[in-house]
Amino acid sequence: MGDPAAAGLPSEFDLIGRHFRPLAGPGALDLEDDAAIVVPPPGRVLVMAADAMVAGVHYLPDDPADGVARKLLRVNLSDLAAMGAAPLGYLLTVSAPTDTPDGWFAAFAAGLAADQAEFGVTLLGGDTTSTPGPVTLSLTIIGHVAPGAAIRRRGAKPGDEVWVTGTIGDGALGLAVSLGRLEDATGYLRGRYRVPTPRLGLPLAGVVSAAIDVSDGLLQDLGHLCRLAGCGAEIEAGLVPLSESARAAGPGLLADILGGGDDYELLLAVPEGRGAALAADCAALGVPLTRIGRFTGGGAGVRVVDAAHETLTIARHGWSHF
Amino acid sequence: MGDPAAAGLPSEFDLIGRHFRPLAGPGALDLEDDAAIVVPPPGRVLVMAADAMVAGVHYLPDDPADGVARKLLRVNLSDLAAMGAAPLGYLLTVSAPTDTPDGWFAAFAAGLAADQAEFGVTLLGGDTTSTPGPVTLSLTIIGHVAPGAAIRRRGAKPGDEVWVTGTIGDGALGLAVSLGRLEDATGYLRGRYRVPTPRLGLPLAGVVSAAIDVSDGLLQDLGHLCRLAGCGAEIEAGLVPLSESARAAGPGLLADILGGGDDYELLLAVPEGRGAALAADCAALGVPLTRIGRFTGGGAGVRVVDAAHETLTIARHGWSHF
Repeated sequence: MGDPAAAGLPSEFDLIGRHFRPLAGPGALDLEDDAAIVVPPPGRVLVMAADAMVAGVHYLPDDPADGVARKLLRVNLSDLAAMGAAPLGYLLTVSAPTDTPDGWFAAFAAGLAADQAEFGVTLLGGDTTSTPGPVTLSLTIIGHVAPGAAIRRRGAKPGDEVWVTGTIGDGALGLAVSLGRLEDATGYLRGRYRVPTPRLGLPLAGVVSAAIDVSDGLLQDLGHLCRLAGCGAEIEAGLVPLSESARAAGPGLLADILGGGDDYELLLAVPEGRGAALAADCAALGVPLTRIGRFTGGGAGVRVVDAAHETLTIARHGWSHF
Repeated sequence: MGDPAAAGLPSEFDLIGRHFRPLAGPGALDLEDDAAIVVPPPGRVLVMAADAMVAGVHYLPDDPADGVARKLLRVNLSDLAAMGAAPLGYLLTVSAPTDTPDGWFAAFAAGLAADQAEFGVTLLGGDTTSTPGPVTLSLTIIGHVAPGAAIRRRGAKPGDEVWVTGTIGDGALGLAVSLGRLEDATGYLRGRYRVPTPRLGLPLAGVVSAAIDVSDGLLQDLGHLCRLAGCGAEIEAGLVPLSESARAAGPGLLADILGGGDDYELLLAVPEGRGAALAADCAALGVPLTRIGRFTGGGAGVRVVDAAHETLTIARHGWSHF
């Protein structure tokens, strides 16, 4: 073999070198090794989660690649937010058709770079492969939390109040806009669908009994908290916080708002009497917190009621990605 | 919403509950939370790597699912082996067509369970999604190593010897067998392709100058060590250790043996004079170690020579998965 090996490097390494190496952090060893080295910050334990996204399933194939990258990172950051953890870094595998334009990778990497700066994370490692199918992305997020301080999904107690961050339903309505099924003059809803905001850094530890991020729909994710706690919950439809754009989208969308996914807001179980102070603390950080109901005794699941306390029937329970 | 939420759980959760929850380890919080909690063993730092596998690209779509699972785990374990790290756990994302039979998932999980027992790892978290494309798997492996003891790819020095574990070329020949291009009476080669053996637990730290696992082909992976060290290497074709089955497959396969991927043996840079003792230590652990050449000065890349020291020209440089 007469040629220098360096001259014969195939495109996989070229792709990594051009687009992904600039994203690598200290523990990544410049992506030149088989693995990264990660040391938890002093006095912290690590928190890890992984989520996959498939073109045509979790995003629309013609969604801009920088937004796809940011959504991939943010849905994983949202898992850290739900545990009360702070982000540290991530590993990424990208499976893409061989005819994927270089510009797609450039835009994808630019989206990651923007969010790395925003959230203080760096790329630790990963893999790129070809696929005869759609672009398939998998990201493992690494975060950290004080020992014993991780917030769990289990732990809600009857009498706890149900609170949510931000506004609910924008993700599902933004998908409807992207599919041409709904009008959205400002582009706000579609923006919320494409690039959600993980609710990191809120002072939840030691206050909330349980938390989950709203990824599969408010009712389904609230159902998870109930199931794990062996309790029920009752929420009042009129209390669910809506964005101006969601309100403008018109009535008749309650099932989409409560059952649709992709909000990435946090759904919290807050002991009675603690909500107002927590809401004030979160508001000071720019994140509105709204009480929408209460956990109840027994395994009665989730009930939605109107202002007169009459039960409403919601057609759609939530979203399964399988 | 009258029904208990628990009764309406969609198939994603059912799938996780039936097949993946039994694989979960202590930090996984029974897979009921958004993320897992991982604490490095006392006095150790964490090591992380991620690799993806796509049906039809990295394995044949009709390969048995238990073997696919074991290969996925083992190619990642091999990355830990190359760093001199010990395994701890893993996160997994599975994207599969909606008509994937439940039996495929059952066999896949059984393969993981078998290798979890063999290698002492547990499932920490992950995600299952549908895809309109081929089954796409991504695994992030978590291991640990003493601080400062991780073996790097960079570090080979001119004069170091090139050593390899086990036998080379079985992976590439096993693929040829699987594709019907080669005979293999015993099934040994195909077995090596389908379920490689990660070379964990060898006493490499403090002895070898550099290491890499042979995943993309001996010549290409040796080229990586050379490029990172700014040196060259010369290997003698006749010294490259072959299995009995590879030898029986006949001559004329040198390009496949040296250039094909999927061996998952370790390629080591060993300072002169240290090889014999290291080989004895590895042999005591059941792993043969063979000297095949030497690192040389200058950026001359990788040269393959015959017993008379004449340069051989090898057609194929290695395997890129993109």
